[in-house]
Amino acid sequence: MSKATIAIIAAASAATGAAATAAFFASRSDRSTVQSPSSLPIDIPTKASPSPPVPAGPAPLPAKDILPPVNPAGILQYGFPGPVNDLRPGLSIMSSYDRRNRNPHWVAEHITPASLATNSGDRRHSNFVEDETIPSKFRAKLHDYFRSGYDRGHQVPAADAKWSQHAMDQTFLLTNMCPQVGDGFNRDYWAHLEDFCRRLTHSYPSVRIVTGPLYLPRKDPVDKKWRVSYEVIGNPPNVAVPTHFYKVIFAEDGQTGGNVSLGAFVLPNAEIASNKPLVDFEVPIEAVERASGLEFASKLPVQRRKRLCSEINCSTIVREYAERQRHLRGAPARKGLPPPM
Amino acid sequence: MSKATIAIIAAASAATGAAATAAFFASRSDRSTVQSPSSLPIDIPTKASPSPPVPAGPAPLPAKDILPPVNPAGILQYGFPGPVNDLRPGLSIMSSYDRRNRNPHWVAEHITPASLATNSGDRRHSNFVEDETIPSKFRAKLHDYFRSGYDRGHQVPAADAKWSQHAMDQTFLLTNMCPQVGDGFNRDYWAHLEDFCRRLTHSYPSVRIVTGPLYLPRKDPVDKKWRVSYEVIGNPPNVAVPTHFYKVIFAEDGQTGGNVSLGAFVLPNAEIASNKPLVDFEVPIEAVERASGLEFASKLPVQRRKRLCSEINCSTIVREYAERQRHLRGAPARKGLPPPM
Repeated sequence: MSKATIAIIAAASAATGAAATAAFFASRSDRSTVQSPSSLPIDIPTKASPSPPVPAGPAPLPAKDILPPVNPAGILQYGFPGPVNDLRPGLSIMSSYDRRNRNPHWVAEHITPASLATNSGDRRHSNFVEDETIPSKFRAKLHDYFRSGYDRGHQVPAADAKWSQHAMDQTFLLTNMCPQVGDGFNRDYWAHLEDFCRRLTHSYPSVRIVTGPLYLPRKDPVDKKWRVSYEVIGNPPNVAVPTHFYKVIFAEDGQTGGNVSLGAFVLPNAEIASNKPLVDFEVPIEAVERASGLEFASKLPVQRRKRLCSEINCSTIVREYAERQRHLRGAPARKGLPPPM
Repeated sequence: MSKATIAIIAAASAATGAAATAAFFASRSDRSTVQSPSSLPIDIPTKASPSPPVPAGPAPLPAKDILPPVNPAGILQYGFPGPVNDLRPGLSIMSSYDRRNRNPHWVAEHITPASLATNSGDRRHSNFVEDETIPSKFRAKLHDYFRSGYDRGHQVPAADAKWSQHAMDQTFLLTNMCPQVGDGFNRDYWAHLEDFCRRLTHSYPSVRIVTGPLYLPRKDPVDKKWRVSYEVIGNPPNVAVPTHFYKVIFAEDGQTGGNVSLGAFVLPNAEIASNKPLVDFEVPIEAVERASGLEFASKLPVQRRKRLCSEINCSTIVREYAERQRHLRGAPARKGLPPPM
């Protein structure tokens, strides 16, 4: 993948909304999603491992050198400064929280044909709640969102956890939320993308989706410098408003050690025309990794990887969705309906 | 401490450089540095513990509910997404790296009268180097800084590691750097602050300093919204330019379980007039914690805490330093000299 990917994503989405992204990404090959292979054994941890072991430090002190008169690691006697991941394992979601921006780093979910076929949860019985397991000084608060102009945007959609009211309730924790533009995004295009993900279960027996915020730079048209710029809502300011959101999709074939069809999408947190094909927002996974500082498939061997949009039509999905919605509801358009979350 | 602290720091430094910060912080009391007490045992880990144990997840599934049809934690079979702390223990420094912004989260150091009295290292023998233990896609690169207009600003100063050439070399890793404004900041006021820290060893037998970048919001004068905005240097853009820097100082009395005099300072990454008293930039530690998402003294009991600037004169230090430098060098001013780092 070109090293310029992040810049190009940001430039494209900043310059023309979603439009210009297509020109670059339409021509990349399957290899674009190939990351560094790993020969590590593939296993499913039963408990979250929040961090890898501490890597080896710099080279040891040469024998001729003096004994160190100081111990910089002694700072840890006063507590580990962090950052702390705040991993939150739940019934239908698993999240890692960003204490600096008061948004999740990522939220993972798992859906199957069976989980989506069960209707035990009803969003009308769920309430948005602060995550009180996060220390107060780092916590996103309900009042931060109040009159901010932004939706409390689910990262894992409530509808994906409707197999249990309890599971659905957990998706209403603010550790699963980011400030999202409502009209034209959270209530429209983003909802279409969520529906696209659910319909993948028609083709794959098991689908995992990792969703989260990005804070991407754009090039200043005047001084040509790249800058990250985002609003912070709340009074005092507390919760960052992401410039973009990503979804990394793992569509599994259901076999142990089987194939995984990967797709990654980056959308601007802005109104998006509903006739834009989803494929316009497809990016190499590494672009999301560079932008987020995260890694999504470091233990997935190259030979098990497929490209989702080579197997599934990512081109016309939004229009199809919109048409289906109109047919089902007899309504002229979705815009203005309550947020689907 | 007022919850509005971060906003006020940002507003003050953004509006008038360093000037307006003084008005707010000059009146706060010692209690401003008091954080939540902890009864945890105080011990010095010999090995860094990069993260606390995973906290308990949400309440378990009620017995009447159905068995979960999904396993969201299964995403970990493909690797832990992160964020990863990249703790780097060194001879004179210990750092934690921010893979998203390509700067450290924090860098800790330890200085003593003995460590500063030994002259075995010479900065002319040290070279700036990339930290190759960081994966390439997340690494700050030398060429990111090239012609950026910013200094490669040491977080732990090279001069604090002069007891060993090897230790000093380690301070030249880019994982110890952030882009800093040169004239009027890195080569001037910031260097004065570093000197202030070193001279604390005249009063305390052991001094620990944690240094790092901040990305603070400022209030837009037109639409009154708070926004974080910072440049990203490199082509493609790679390394964030912090809006501010912090230093949290632990001046120890040398007794096991003894008193620790705490001081926290937040300075804008901008030219600062050399006659500004350092105390203008003093903030409650919690202000740095809220802004950085980190915690610095969670295991330090309240009864062991003192306020550094109650014991040490933080008011006239910069002018004193400048005068001493002039006297020593016979030069009219420091400005324009090579960066002291």
